Amino acid sequence: MRIDIDLRKQVDESYPIYINQMETIRIAGKVAIVTNPKVAGLHLGTLLGRIDAKEIYIITIPDGERYKNQQSLDMILENLFNHTFSRKDSLIAFGGGVIGDMTGFAAAIFQRGIDFIQIPTTLLSQVDASVGGKTGINNRFGKNLVGAFYQPKAVYIENRFLRTLPSREFAAGVAEIAKMAIMFDADFFDWLEEADLKEEENLAYAIQKSVETKAEVVRLDEKERGVRAVLNYGHTFAHVIENLTGYSRYLHGEAVAIGMHMANLLARKLGYLDEEEVQRIKRFLERSGLPTTYAIDDPERFYQAFFLDKKASEGEITFILPHPIGAYEIRNDIPKSTVMEVLDAFRAG
Amino acid sequence: MRIDIDLRKQVDESYPIYINQMETIRIAGKVAIVTNPKVAGLHLGTLLGRIDAKEIYIITIPDGERYKNQQSLDMILENLFNHTFSRKDSLIAFGGGVIGDMTGFAAAIFQRGIDFIQIPTTLLSQVDASVGGKTGINNRFGKNLVGAFYQPKAVYIENRFLRTLPSREFAAGVAEIAKMAIMFDADFFDWLEEADLKEEENLAYAIQKSVETKAEVVRLDEKERGVRAVLNYGHTFAHVIENLTGYSRYLHGEAVAIGMHMANLLARKLGYLDEEEVQRIKRFLERSGLPTTYAIDDPERFYQAFFLDKKASEGEITFILPHPIGAYEIRNDIPKSTVMEVLDAFRAG
Repeated sequence: MRIDIDLRKQVDESYPIYINQMETIRIAGKVAIVTNPKVAGLHLGTLLGRIDAKEIYIITIPDGERYKNQQSLDMILENLFNHTFSRKDSLIAFGGGVIGDMTGFAAAIFQRGIDFIQIPTTLLSQVDASVGGKTGINNRFGKNLVGAFYQPKAVYIENRFLRTLPSREFAAGVAEIAKMAIMFDADFFDWLEEADLKEEENLAYAIQKSVETKAEVVRLDEKERGVRAVLNYGHTFAHVIENLTGYSRYLHGEAVAIGMHMANLLARKLGYLDEEEVQRIKRFLERSGLPTTYAIDDPERFYQAFFLDKKASEGEITFILPHPIGAYEIRNDIPKSTVMEVLDAFRAG
Repeated sequence: MRIDIDLRKQVDESYPIYINQMETIRIAGKVAIVTNPKVAGLHLGTLLGRIDAKEIYIITIPDGERYKNQQSLDMILENLFNHTFSRKDSLIAFGGGVIGDMTGFAAAIFQRGIDFIQIPTTLLSQVDASVGGKTGINNRFGKNLVGAFYQPKAVYIENRFLRTLPSREFAAGVAEIAKMAIMFDADFFDWLEEADLKEEENLAYAIQKSVETKAEVVRLDEKERGVRAVLNYGHTFAHVIENLTGYSRYLHGEAVAIGMHMANLLARKLGYLDEEEVQRIKRFLERSGLPTTYAIDDPERFYQAFFLDKKASEGEITFILPHPIGAYEIRNDIPKSTVMEVLDAFRAG
């Protein structure tokens, strides 16, 4: 005998992203703000002035990717239990990607799910982590290997929190904005070349365009089976660079900038970009304070490192390439010799 | 500025439940079977003969509710990482409710979600845990406090696995079947009174009716805001009994049987059931090997213990009562004095 459990249903996980429009945030029950000591020191006062809740708790996690782990997650959950949080209470993620991913995951699994609000305080997390619903933690086997897809109730993006952001971190966020423009929107890239992103109005526009573009991509392909892979432009090379430099020399956005330039040289070889376009992107990245050079000691070793990435399935490497600026090509059949020509151009010395 | 992320969508998490119809289970990638040593010793051979997969791994967790914790969950995840499981691989939960809840939760969070199949081996988990998508673990603050809603890809219910089930555990499953009948289906209860559930054909029918009824309830109210609360018939009293006896004297289904009888006496006081109906249910439970008596030492203390339950919100106790057999009443306004009359009837000595 067979019984069919019919679970087709209409779900609505829609939510608003407010850009520079943080009014008082009203929360029905209790709320716990998860943050790190650095962000708390700089901006918690501002945030607390905007929250209206029955009870407010602060949970701080040390700053840094290496704290995005089970222990920190347990600490968050423990705090919620100690303060007798129920399903009607809420979490606020107040920090960069690490805080956002961990808080989102805690919200996903606390009593099978409670509400959470994202207030990202880095440019990277404002453009990247506020859309997509990816939450999770790292473990000794790798990054983001335990987690859930879980959507926030609202996202508040505020330029004011970026005023204290170190310039390298600001630039790392610009790399992700450039990525969206180069892959999906040539006019946006033209605009970026002319704009001063230190002006808050321009920055707000750039964030808006990036977020809207990413939202459209994720809507078309939530579970990363097709177009969402395009968001990995620059990342195929970047993961190898990060791996070979022990995740310490470059910020993620910096490695992505180098990786985009490498991908562009590959695109040039395949006739997808001309030299002028390659140089336009390079100039934009450098002007934004991002690196585009990297000394490869051993190109063969670099090539082999592509296969360590969990996304390189069955011995194929997927390259995301501009074709031309504002459009993309997904290729997993590029001969090793062609890739090696690009890597050789980065050979040290 | 406000951007609306539109995440209204049609999702399909439908899945089949096969009753006594386990053909070969074909799995595209690798599979890990999570089970306990007892079930493995009795039935793993049978199961392995039915699985066709690229690679099969066995993960055993010690038997018992106290192992439904973070440590066991970590152990499952660790195994999957060590065997380089990817998103395309699967889990099978092969055991009772503890194994099912933990395996489902591991599947929910491993790389943000992989497929899992439920093969429940107790009557209770066959009728109860195979529908509803509740997964999770316990911690020192209570039961099922960390978890997710996550649906299996398929459920296989096999009478053969019940042949080795201790009779007390069989009876505990019958309590949940009786609950479904008394709340939703008077004809089904009439049938139960006459049926010999040791006959496999009758048992399969009883399981089918229970599963179909629960599926309908869950479909109407997945997140437990309305009718799904009715599944707690008997549980308001049962939780107190389990608490006062340290979760060791009674199996959950046994405490529910006592709790249903207590609820019935309350229903009798309110005119929802007549004495004959109260006795019919009592006879059925006793004939099934279930307890209906419990010596309350201190009725006042018993009453206060209602408020420890996380479902007793804001000082109200919700009672689920038959009105009459086959229909229900949800009441959270019953005067303490009325409840105390029932508790006094159970006073020890």
